Amino acid sequence: MDKTVVLTGIKPTGMPHLGNYLGAIRPALKRADDESVEARFFIADYHSLNTMRNAEELRGSIHEIAATWLACGLDPSKTLIYKQSDVPETFELTTILMAFTAKGLMNRAHAYKAAVDVNRSKEQSDDHQINMGLYTYPVLMAADILLFDTQEVPVGKDQVQHVEMAQDIAGVINHNYKAPLLTIPEARIDEKVMLVPGSDGRKMSKSYGNHIPLFLPEKKLRKMIMKIVTNSQGMEEPKDPETCNVFALYKLFATAEEQTALAQRYRAGGMGWGEAKQELFEKINDEIKDQRAIYDELMADTTKIDAILAQGAEQARAVASQTIQRLRKAVGVA
Amino acid sequence: MDKTVVLTGIKPTGMPHLGNYLGAIRPALKRADDESVEARFFIADYHSLNTMRNAEELRGSIHEIAATWLACGLDPSKTLIYKQSDVPETFELTTILMAFTAKGLMNRAHAYKAAVDVNRSKEQSDDHQINMGLYTYPVLMAADILLFDTQEVPVGKDQVQHVEMAQDIAGVINHNYKAPLLTIPEARIDEKVMLVPGSDGRKMSKSYGNHIPLFLPEKKLRKMIMKIVTNSQGMEEPKDPETCNVFALYKLFATAEEQTALAQRYRAGGMGWGEAKQELFEKINDEIKDQRAIYDELMADTTKIDAILAQGAEQARAVASQTIQRLRKAVGVA
Repeated sequence: MDKTVVLTGIKPTGMPHLGNYLGAIRPALKRADDESVEARFFIADYHSLNTMRNAEELRGSIHEIAATWLACGLDPSKTLIYKQSDVPETFELTTILMAFTAKGLMNRAHAYKAAVDVNRSKEQSDDHQINMGLYTYPVLMAADILLFDTQEVPVGKDQVQHVEMAQDIAGVINHNYKAPLLTIPEARIDEKVMLVPGSDGRKMSKSYGNHIPLFLPEKKLRKMIMKIVTNSQGMEEPKDPETCNVFALYKLFATAEEQTALAQRYRAGGMGWGEAKQELFEKINDEIKDQRAIYDELMADTTKIDAILAQGAEQARAVASQTIQRLRKAVGVA
Repeated sequence: MDKTVVLTGIKPTGMPHLGNYLGAIRPALKRADDESVEARFFIADYHSLNTMRNAEELRGSIHEIAATWLACGLDPSKTLIYKQSDVPETFELTTILMAFTAKGLMNRAHAYKAAVDVNRSKEQSDDHQINMGLYTYPVLMAADILLFDTQEVPVGKDQVQHVEMAQDIAGVINHNYKAPLLTIPEARIDEKVMLVPGSDGRKMSKSYGNHIPLFLPEKKLRKMIMKIVTNSQGMEEPKDPETCNVFALYKLFATAEEQTALAQRYRAGGMGWGEAKQELFEKINDEIKDQRAIYDELMADTTKIDAILAQGAEQARAVASQTIQRLRKAVGVA
């Protein structure tokens, strides 16, 4: 049986946090291990260029994100990982797709509409400070997907539209040339997305500033965990694990037995918040310390990351160049 | 002294006509002969894809346009000619430029605004049937220009805006990275553009259907010239050369002496329209018959055209890859 081609794009925006790890990285790598799947991952660096105008920051983010996925278990000898910018066929396909993309479709893109709404709320003109990178990003993303005959794109509910747009554009081209030139991708929506609370109890997110970076040095990790917001109950008081931010995070890392044991200590009283936080720190640290060691090693000398990405690019281009040759002939430029 | 880099884009839309020849091809090739100039020509095939959805038509147009310029004297051993689609660095640069192009700038592009005006006049929504290829074309054209450190772009008055947009986008990038990464191009406006009348006396244009294709077979050319609109004066009557469509075209091909001689025959009477048209046919045919023979030979076996374009692409990519490497490092993806 042919394997299902699954493509995941990763936007480099600095070191991932615990929420990214639990909600995205861990499940994606689990799925990549599935025998029926051919998983491919790419770092969408030109996506980040729309907002990241500092070269050192972008270069650093690319290394951080690659090191994170590699440290978390992505095996480059089995699973493809490459940088979007290393596959120039992506940009030629984008140019081809542009000719078959209705401008009206782009006007309906969520990210663009959200930016327009912000402008209107501030009584600015609709397109104030909106760049063409943001506006055309759905076409670039369609090229990312369609270039690799991708069958499945794992997405959150808010990103289903991107896959629908890729379907739409591919359909227009296949119809125009009366041939199945591009594989129509399907979105795979993970209904049970893990809700990871941040240090203030709201969803962990960089934009809330309540995130705990994944591979902080041990001491810094402990310090951040100690800052998780709790109520003001004294040490002796019995506590409710179900309403506690510390316990909520603990549950995501601990076994059922460990959860029951800690919950009992909460309810029995006599355990202060510092102690609960220490339990959480140890649990998280146990899970990630080996990975952090790999991460630190990769980041200490990034030539290994660069070599892995270069190798990935070569493999990716072997597929991409076939697609682009097929398209070039079909549209008549070759 | 360094030569001035002059870039001319040619949109393949079928065989050029006499108006294209006199107004664009002949002067551009004359300028390419200038010792102070390094002229480069490219066939903007992905531009045509926005409207030309038939592969055979596009492929044929590319060959026709290349054969025309070669037949008219473009010497590929001295002057670069290549296909836009053969230089993939163009599309990566386009992606980079997008991130630094204000959407508001695109909203002001003449071609887009004209399409919106047509929609409004038909009470359609603004973006009805407008594709992203048309909308983003100024960015692609900026990439065409900036990729080659172009200093000068010869344009008609209606295209000055494209060069201004390229200047604008390049300026934003140079300013952001505090380095002269991209050469700011200048538009060179030909003030004395030759007005070539079509068979009905209006400006010769495909859209008016009054054009005379450049390399028609001799018999067909003669037939089309015989159809040029004249007044209904009889053979014996003296005629006014200055109000005659036949004479207007004759002037563009003949020497001053030849013009004076034919004008005298007009004024003397005794010369019918058929005779005047025969003079015009012979004049045009004399000018283009050797070029037509070369054109026919190139079109009979297009492998030679393909080889010339492939060679051009190789030379173009030698320049383009340097620019794109410089940009990749500067923005931080390499």
